[in-house]
Amino acid sequence: MEIATGIRKKYPVPMIRRLPSYLRIIKSYSYGGIEYISATDIANELGYDSVKVRKDLALTGVCGKPRMGYKVDELIRAIRSIVGWDKNSEAVLVGTGCLGSALLGFTGFSRRGINFAAAFDVDPHKIGMTVHGHTVMPMRGMKNFITERKIEIAVLTVPADAAQETVDILVDAGIKGIWNFSPAILKVPARVVTQNENLMSGLAVFMVKMATESV
Amino acid sequence: MEIATGIRKKYPVPMIRRLPSYLRIIKSYSYGGIEYISATDIANELGYDSVKVRKDLALTGVCGKPRMGYKVDELIRAIRSIVGWDKNSEAVLVGTGCLGSALLGFTGFSRRGINFAAAFDVDPHKIGMTVHGHTVMPMRGMKNFITERKIEIAVLTVPADAAQETVDILVDAGIKGIWNFSPAILKVPARVVTQNENLMSGLAVFMVKMATESV
Repeated sequence: MEIATGIRKKYPVPMIRRLPSYLRIIKSYSYGGIEYISATDIANELGYDSVKVRKDLALTGVCGKPRMGYKVDELIRAIRSIVGWDKNSEAVLVGTGCLGSALLGFTGFSRRGINFAAAFDVDPHKIGMTVHGHTVMPMRGMKNFITERKIEIAVLTVPADAAQETVDILVDAGIKGIWNFSPAILKVPARVVTQNENLMSGLAVFMVKMATESV
Repeated sequence: MEIATGIRKKYPVPMIRRLPSYLRIIKSYSYGGIEYISATDIANELGYDSVKVRKDLALTGVCGKPRMGYKVDELIRAIRSIVGWDKNSEAVLVGTGCLGSALLGFTGFSRRGINFAAAFDVDPHKIGMTVHGHTVMPMRGMKNFITERKIEIAVLTVPADAAQETVDILVDAGIKGIWNFSPAILKVPARVVTQNENLMSGLAVFMVKMATESV
């Protein structure tokens, strides 16, 4: 528990949220055959404050060289390691509606260590259908599948009113983390990690900004 | 400008992000024919701290009655007004890949005042196709469409490397706000509002939590 708190302190959430953007820029340098990148380079590409970028990069543990910057390969390795994209994890996706299907089709997940082992749905019409190469399986088989395959990650794209009952099955099956795209707030035991992506929160902020900031 | 800052101060972003969840709970009370709801009710439903909920609700300007709570209808009206879901805005969606198509199919937007007037794509194979009732139109017609229809909102679901050139067209056409689902950080004039939804940021936080918190 103390170790966990330590690691979370080491990498503040806002810094973690910026890492994928950094990685995208650094990789574009790597593809371009450029060996070094500076905090200022990254800051300029993203329109960020370079002091903030420098602080974030310092937390990665990679040391920059004066007037050269950071070695591109080292930074890529360090960031991928922090965000766990250098490992491979199997995941299940539950709820193959529009958003669930979109996520199944997103090729970027496998590059980031997430491989969908199966997709589940309650709708009998969807069972057996193939969505972006994944056959939709019936929800009743989900618990055994997760337990037998020792799957740790679930991506939840069911409607709000089906979320908690689905989560109860996932928790019962031994899932360790739920990436929640349903608008529901999930009740899970302390040992289970949840990460909520509430699109409507983003829309609310966007609309308030539109009402107050746009000219 | 001062007014804008004032309104933004009045509603802090974390509070705005919570409003859609509050609204969902309050509406479920309304559907159930319940007239009053307390901050504690909402807090319990969402697993939030009730002091935080009470502070947020106070900012809506709705007054609660002692031992009764807030009038459900008044709260719904106030929250919908704050987040602008009581108005109707036309929007364009650009990029009809997996995520773009999913967003076009999400029926919840119209209830929240966002109506897709058109969907655009560069892919000639997609032009003319119907995605969830919207005909995909060629990108070259986008600028005129936006200008003629006086459309203020664009939902951006193009790949990162196409983002900035698309945004330049949108800005040129007079768009006022861009809800950006591409991983790119957009360069726009100060008058244009952007709201970035970077899925990969959420994934990064989720994976770090998994590595440090799950047991």
